[in-house]
Amino acid sequence: MTDPNVERKLVEIMRIISESDKPVGARLIADEMHNRGYAIGERAVRYHLRILDERGFTEKHGYIGRTITERGKKELSDALVSDRLGFIITKIEELIYRTDYDLDSGKGNVIVNISYIDKDDYDNAADVIRYAMAHGASISPKVGVLEEESDDYDIYIPEGKIALATVCSITFDGLLLKNGIPTMPAFGGLMQMENYEPEGFVDLISYSGTSIDPIKIFLRRKSTSILKSIDTGSGYMLANMREIPASAAKRAEIVIERAKKDDIGGNICIGDSGEDVLYAPVQRGKVGIPVMVGINAVAAVEEAGIQIDTHPVSTVMEYKKMKIL
Amino acid sequence: MTDPNVERKLVEIMRIISESDKPVGARLIADEMHNRGYAIGERAVRYHLRILDERGFTEKHGYIGRTITERGKKELSDALVSDRLGFIITKIEELIYRTDYDLDSGKGNVIVNISYIDKDDYDNAADVIRYAMAHGASISPKVGVLEEESDDYDIYIPEGKIALATVCSITFDGLLLKNGIPTMPAFGGLMQMENYEPEGFVDLISYSGTSIDPIKIFLRRKSTSILKSIDTGSGYMLANMREIPASAAKRAEIVIERAKKDDIGGNICIGDSGEDVLYAPVQRGKVGIPVMVGINAVAAVEEAGIQIDTHPVSTVMEYKKMKIL
Repeated sequence: MTDPNVERKLVEIMRIISESDKPVGARLIADEMHNRGYAIGERAVRYHLRILDERGFTEKHGYIGRTITERGKKELSDALVSDRLGFIITKIEELIYRTDYDLDSGKGNVIVNISYIDKDDYDNAADVIRYAMAHGASISPKVGVLEEESDDYDIYIPEGKIALATVCSITFDGLLLKNGIPTMPAFGGLMQMENYEPEGFVDLISYSGTSIDPIKIFLRRKSTSILKSIDTGSGYMLANMREIPASAAKRAEIVIERAKKDDIGGNICIGDSGEDVLYAPVQRGKVGIPVMVGINAVAAVEEAGIQIDTHPVSTVMEYKKMKIL
Repeated sequence: MTDPNVERKLVEIMRIISESDKPVGARLIADEMHNRGYAIGERAVRYHLRILDERGFTEKHGYIGRTITERGKKELSDALVSDRLGFIITKIEELIYRTDYDLDSGKGNVIVNISYIDKDDYDNAADVIRYAMAHGASISPKVGVLEEESDDYDIYIPEGKIALATVCSITFDGLLLKNGIPTMPAFGGLMQMENYEPEGFVDLISYSGTSIDPIKIFLRRKSTSILKSIDTGSGYMLANMREIPASAAKRAEIVIERAKKDDIGGNICIGDSGEDVLYAPVQRGKVGIPVMVGINAVAAVEEAGIQIDTHPVSTVMEYKKMKIL
């Protein structure tokens, strides 16, 4: 068995094929994978299908598509549950590891959230995102706009849709790690805003021990009032908090200051050693670093009544290719 | 400062009073507390109001109601955030401690979830609950039916509503603890059912480090398919998992067997030492005990299209006074 993320996709693809009563093609599978929350493109589906063929789990019928073999059915029933349950922290750790944005050269990848909107809604959505980002609701004002699958990113784009990539706050952890500071996201939470300032977390969900992204839980609960927070100064936004060794606080401050020059901000403060930060508990010997999450900008789009479908902490993207809307 | 639960209610009541431009009475406050997720009755509101008066935070204007004082306003702004953030595990620990149901005498309290339905929906809801419980979706077939606030339980009943108390799976932890077995709920999760049997968890959220009840998160996401699971054998139900010392497994088995005679069941199995149980990770030296949660029965009511508003892990109730519907 290889990469667990690949394995999970293989199982899901087998499930899709097994659920159909006729052969299924890559395009249809990509569509359905998208519905099931996997942001992978047709090209990646083809790659996975070749692995399944090699293992004897699927069978190709010319250009019509693939069916599942008896061996595939058995494999699927064994894998059915175990391959679906993955803790979100594992995925986050992998993406932190893959972030290689270099503050000196300006080259490399950041972690992004992928959101899908109708092409017709693009102008309105861009207005809202620009507005939210200009008011500091997000970690970076830069956005990747993908109109169709490119060779650079295998991100699935359904017909008539545009994918927007917003910088994910976990990028902060990637930057800290690249600069030698051990870090791990501790909590995702709902932040109460008062007088245009973060007042404190009112709800928290730990990143460890959950298979569902905490930020996705809050997004789904429609807990935010981003636009109201920007307009009136009080409301609820999303933020998260990471812990680093207290002895690394000074170094982290330098990295965070340096990142601002590259439009990577959103950091609220650096806490004191072992002290709660904005009511979020911090372990002894550590300091907490709360950051406004990138998802706030897309949550604002939803609040404005525009349909947007968001996958937090999706993949990595070259920062240079993202732009201010 | 006294009990943090009392403090949290005091703050919420002050907030309600401060948000009104005229004096507010206890009945209105109880209504609004209910909307905000606090299942407390008018009588309890009056009790809390007396505390607030004594502290000089509120002021009584005869029978018209209460207003907030300047001192109350200051207190409220200080307390605004810190008193709202409480981890769910703290509340659960408190309820486990308060459970005193005795398997030998049949006396004492169990932990219950409180659900509200329209009086008109009662017969239909009771049918669904009876059906779900008869098919083992729940920990106990006994239900407490409250039509109005009683002297025994200060549970708030809005006009035209009935409150249904279902046995909460955390009662299991209370029973184990009363029998000398240290226990703590580890995860709430979504359980895949196949061939009418639990096949494994497909999603998990840890009870520690979250301010929102994991079961409430799944309920809100409408993740279940209880009725389909009962009818076809496959679907999704809610379950949770606790850990106990591996050396206490034999003793736990005896307690669990004994509890069945009192209609407290729902236990799926007892895992092996340090081994995953139904794909949920278990710490070294511990065994995992997964249990179908009581909320399944009320989730089924919602699936049947009947509006029901549920507060998991709400309070304790005398088990003797609950009955099979």
